[in-house]
Amino acid sequence: MIAEFKLIERIAALQGADDGVRIGIGDDAAVLAITPGHELAVTTDTLVAGVHFPLDAAPADIGYKAVAVNVSDLAAMGATPRFATLALTLPSIDMGFVEPLLRGIAEAMKRDSLTLVGGDTTRGPFSITITAMGEVAQGTALTRSGAHAGDSVYVSGTLGDAAAALAMRGHWPALDEAGKLAKSRLEQRLAKPHPRVALGHALRGVASACIDISDGLAQDLAHVARLSEAAIVVDVSLLPLSRALQTVVADREQQWPFAFGGDDYELAFCAPPQSAAVIERLATELKLPLTCIGTVGPGQGVHLLDHDGRVRDVPRGYEHFRT
Amino acid sequence: MIAEFKLIERIAALQGADDGVRIGIGDDAAVLAITPGHELAVTTDTLVAGVHFPLDAAPADIGYKAVAVNVSDLAAMGATPRFATLALTLPSIDMGFVEPLLRGIAEAMKRDSLTLVGGDTTRGPFSITITAMGEVAQGTALTRSGAHAGDSVYVSGTLGDAAAALAMRGHWPALDEAGKLAKSRLEQRLAKPHPRVALGHALRGVASACIDISDGLAQDLAHVARLSEAAIVVDVSLLPLSRALQTVVADREQQWPFAFGGDDYELAFCAPPQSAAVIERLATELKLPLTCIGTVGPGQGVHLLDHDGRVRDVPRGYEHFRT
Repeated sequence: MIAEFKLIERIAALQGADDGVRIGIGDDAAVLAITPGHELAVTTDTLVAGVHFPLDAAPADIGYKAVAVNVSDLAAMGATPRFATLALTLPSIDMGFVEPLLRGIAEAMKRDSLTLVGGDTTRGPFSITITAMGEVAQGTALTRSGAHAGDSVYVSGTLGDAAAALAMRGHWPALDEAGKLAKSRLEQRLAKPHPRVALGHALRGVASACIDISDGLAQDLAHVARLSEAAIVVDVSLLPLSRALQTVVADREQQWPFAFGGDDYELAFCAPPQSAAVIERLATELKLPLTCIGTVGPGQGVHLLDHDGRVRDVPRGYEHFRT
Repeated sequence: MIAEFKLIERIAALQGADDGVRIGIGDDAAVLAITPGHELAVTTDTLVAGVHFPLDAAPADIGYKAVAVNVSDLAAMGATPRFATLALTLPSIDMGFVEPLLRGIAEAMKRDSLTLVGGDTTRGPFSITITAMGEVAQGTALTRSGAHAGDSVYVSGTLGDAAAALAMRGHWPALDEAGKLAKSRLEQRLAKPHPRVALGHALRGVASACIDISDGLAQDLAHVARLSEAAIVVDVSLLPLSRALQTVVADREQQWPFAFGGDDYELAFCAPPQSAAVIERLATELKLPLTCIGTVGPGQGVHLLDHDGRVRDVPRGYEHFRT
C-alpha cells in the first residue's frame, strides 16, 4: 500500500454512509450486508493505459470510465449497483494526475450509487481494476442464454458514437458550428458513458436475454447466439445512429459500420414479440430509445443484412484500444 | 479480453461445482447466493512484478501467493472463503509462464475452497489483482478495533521465516545438511504461505481484535492500537521463531528483527486473560502455535521491550519488495 497518500480513503471521504457496509475501509476486509432475498452480482474489469484508453486521455475520464464499464456489466444482469473495490497501480504519485483520476472515479460511483468498500494501491505501471458488486432479487438476473427463435432483438440508445470519436481522434475535419457540437457530443459518449442500470432493472421478467455491448455489437450478440443456441439476424438499416454521428459522417454507408466499433455502453436484449408494447412503454418512461434491430431464429451465429436482404460483412478495424 | 486464450475459463475448469454460484463465468457478471444469516467479507490485493515478488520468482509461486494474500485478509475477519475474481494483465501469452501461473492460482484457490467466478485478462505490464469474497455469520466478524487494556496479544505460527528467506536470497552462506533443510523450509514459507482460515474462524467470539500481519508485525499491530485506542507492548524475547530461522541465523540478537520483516501470513489477535485456556486448547486442536507476545495497555502506539524491560526500536530494512 502507498500508505502515505491514503488514496482509497480519499475517495471514500467523497461518499455518503451506506447501511449495507457493516465494516468499511480500514480493516483487513470489508463486511457487507446483502438484502435478504437477493443474490450478489459480481464483475471485474481492468483498464490499462495505452490499451483501453489513449495515453493522453484526461485522468478524470479514465477514472470515470473504469467504474462505468463495470456498472454496465451489472446493468446487463438487471442488478442494482451497491459496492465496489478499487485496485490502483501507479508508477508515482503525481497529484495533478491522481486528484482528477479519483474525482472521476468518485463521480461515476456516485452517479450509479456504488459505495467504495476497499482497495489496494500499489506502485507499478498504471492500471485500474475495479470489482463491482450489485444485488438482484433471487432468480431474476438476466443472462445471455435465454433467447428463443422468434424473439426480437433490441438495442438501447444509439450506436457507434464512441467508435466514431475514437476513429476521428486527431483526424477531425474542419467543422462548422453544428459539426463542432456533434464532435463534442461524440467525444462525451466516448469519455463518459451512461450505463443503462434502470433499463437492465426494468427488463427483468421482460427480456429473454441481455448483454452489455461494449466489446462490439457483433461480438457480443455472438455470445447471446452461442449461449442461447440460436441465430441472430440484424438488419443494419435499423441500427439507431445519433444525429451527432450522422452530422459528422454524412454517408450512410460510412455511418453504420461505426455501430460495430464497440465502446457503446448500451444493452442489447431479446424479447418475445408480445413484449413489444411493454418495451415501447419502457422507452418512453426511461426517455431512452429502444430499437428493434433484428430477430432470433434457428441456427447459429450473427448475420447482418441490409434492408434489401443483402448479406453484409461485420465491419472490422476498430480494435486499436481494446484487446 | 485476450479471448483466444480463455485463461479465466482454464482455471475454472480445474474447479468443482459450487452450489452458491447461480451464474458463473461467461456472462456479464457472476450471480452468487450468500448463505442466509451471513454477511459478505470482501478484500482485494494486487501483486506487481518487481514490487511484491522478485522478477525471477517461479510463476506457480506468484499465482499461489496472489490468492493466499487475499485469503489471509478473509481469515483475519473470521470469514470463510467462498468466491474470487481474477484480473490478470500480461504483456504476452507465454504458456511456459502462464500455465504454471494458473496452476498456482488454482492450487491456492482449491486449498482454501475459493471458487473463481469471473475475471478479466488484459494486455499490459504483468500484474495480478484478486478480489476474494468470504462469508461470516452476521455480526461475528473480527475487527482491528476491539482490543482493550488488559488483553493479551497473541500471534499464530512463527514469525520472520519469509523475511529471512527474502533477505538471504542470493546471499545464502555455505550450509550443512541441516542448514539446507532449514533454507528450504524458509523459502517455502516465503513462496507458499498458509493463511490461517481455521484459526480466524475459531477466534470469533474469543478474540477482541484480529489482524493479518503480512505488512509487518509492528505496522499491523499499530493499526490495532490506533483503531482500538490503546497501546500495545510487545516483549521481543517472546516472539516465536522457527527452528529453521534459528538454524540459519545463529545469534538471537540477529534473529528476532526478522519477525518484523513482514510477509508472514499469520494472524495477530488480542483476547482477555480469561480466554487463555480456550486459546491454548485451540492451539492444540489446530496444531498451530499461538504465542502470547505482549499486552494491551492504556496509551497509544506499539512499544517493544526485551525481557529485561529495555525499550527496543522497531527493526527496519526489509521493505524491498513491498510498497
